[in-house]
Amino acid sequence: MKVLVDRIRRDGKTLGNGILKVDSFVNHQVDSGLMDLCGKEFARLFTPLGATKVLTAEISGIAPALTTALHLGLPVVYARKTKPITMPDQVYLTLAPSHTKGRMVELIISPEYLTHGDKVLIIDDFLATGATILGLVRLAEAAGAKIVGIGALIEKTFEGGRAMLEALGVQVESLAVITSMDDGKIVFNE
Amino acid sequence: MKVLVDRIRRDGKTLGNGILKVDSFVNHQVDSGLMDLCGKEFARLFTPLGATKVLTAEISGIAPALTTALHLGLPVVYARKTKPITMPDQVYLTLAPSHTKGRMVELIISPEYLTHGDKVLIIDDFLATGATILGLVRLAEAAGAKIVGIGALIEKTFEGGRAMLEALGVQVESLAVITSMDDGKIVFNE
Repeated sequence: MKVLVDRIRRDGKTLGNGILKVDSFVNHQVDSGLMDLCGKEFARLFTPLGATKVLTAEISGIAPALTTALHLGLPVVYARKTKPITMPDQVYLTLAPSHTKGRMVELIISPEYLTHGDKVLIIDDFLATGATILGLVRLAEAAGAKIVGIGALIEKTFEGGRAMLEALGVQVESLAVITSMDDGKIVFNE
Repeated sequence: MKVLVDRIRRDGKTLGNGILKVDSFVNHQVDSGLMDLCGKEFARLFTPLGATKVLTAEISGIAPALTTALHLGLPVVYARKTKPITMPDQVYLTLAPSHTKGRMVELIISPEYLTHGDKVLIIDDFLATGATILGLVRLAEAAGAKIVGIGALIEKTFEGGRAMLEALGVQVESLAVITSMDDGKIVFNE
């Protein structure tokens, strides 16, 4: 998606160790108009799948998942990383390594909002190792829901996440695909 | 705002101790269409203020802040509660008590995204004691920005937050105003 690639080219910063800083438009400050365009594009790509829910993980998945859900006319569920007191005692919980936090984090979903029969579209900001998305897949499967598609704003192919998702046999779409960040240079697959 | 009040009436649950569970449409599962209507209403109420940025706190403020920003054509900045590795060492940081977590949490903003000259509209899911919103006010003021308005989806008047915000002398709007939750009964000020 050209507008996103151009924006990463202009405002993205490589911090070394595979870390891409996009917090001026994705995950601290959010460009609401850009996020809306990304949601619209995900909706276009995934409309035929007939999803019933958009699923993401807090925190930085919320913005793209919400705009996608808006364009699809669906609710969005975001997995929590700490259990709020408003959640029932019995939950779906899994662990996933966090790249930017350097430790395992919990992903928690209430059984109230993901159930047998749901067709789930997973949307997240990054597809890197695929670990967070696979955590969301486990939660959805635990709830008896079916994954129908996976979308990420930005894929870093050199971290191998797409291969990890292939066994699921579902449509996987990334709006900007980065094949290398060596020596601080961001190379896109266009 | 009738559609939000009606929804709280239908799906909101009181858990005692002033806690209102709205995680089926606001802060775990999000009704994207409802959130868009709320954002549109905030935009209508606040357009004359000429804000340059929408400010909120992760996590549950992100959805209403994003839809408001979309309708105003503005970027949104969400204060982080843990400092990601993509953030510079020098940040604006304040502490605020979290009602639902029962402890103090940090609110952190990068100086990159809030600066002198910014006119800030704060949007959050709840106005209860006002503590989180006052934390955001302190961060904005530390950055030299000016608060021009404050909006909350749901106000609980019995927790006194509005009085705490009055000294700021800015427009404060809540889309659903709850005056009492005694004995599990939600009473609205309509």
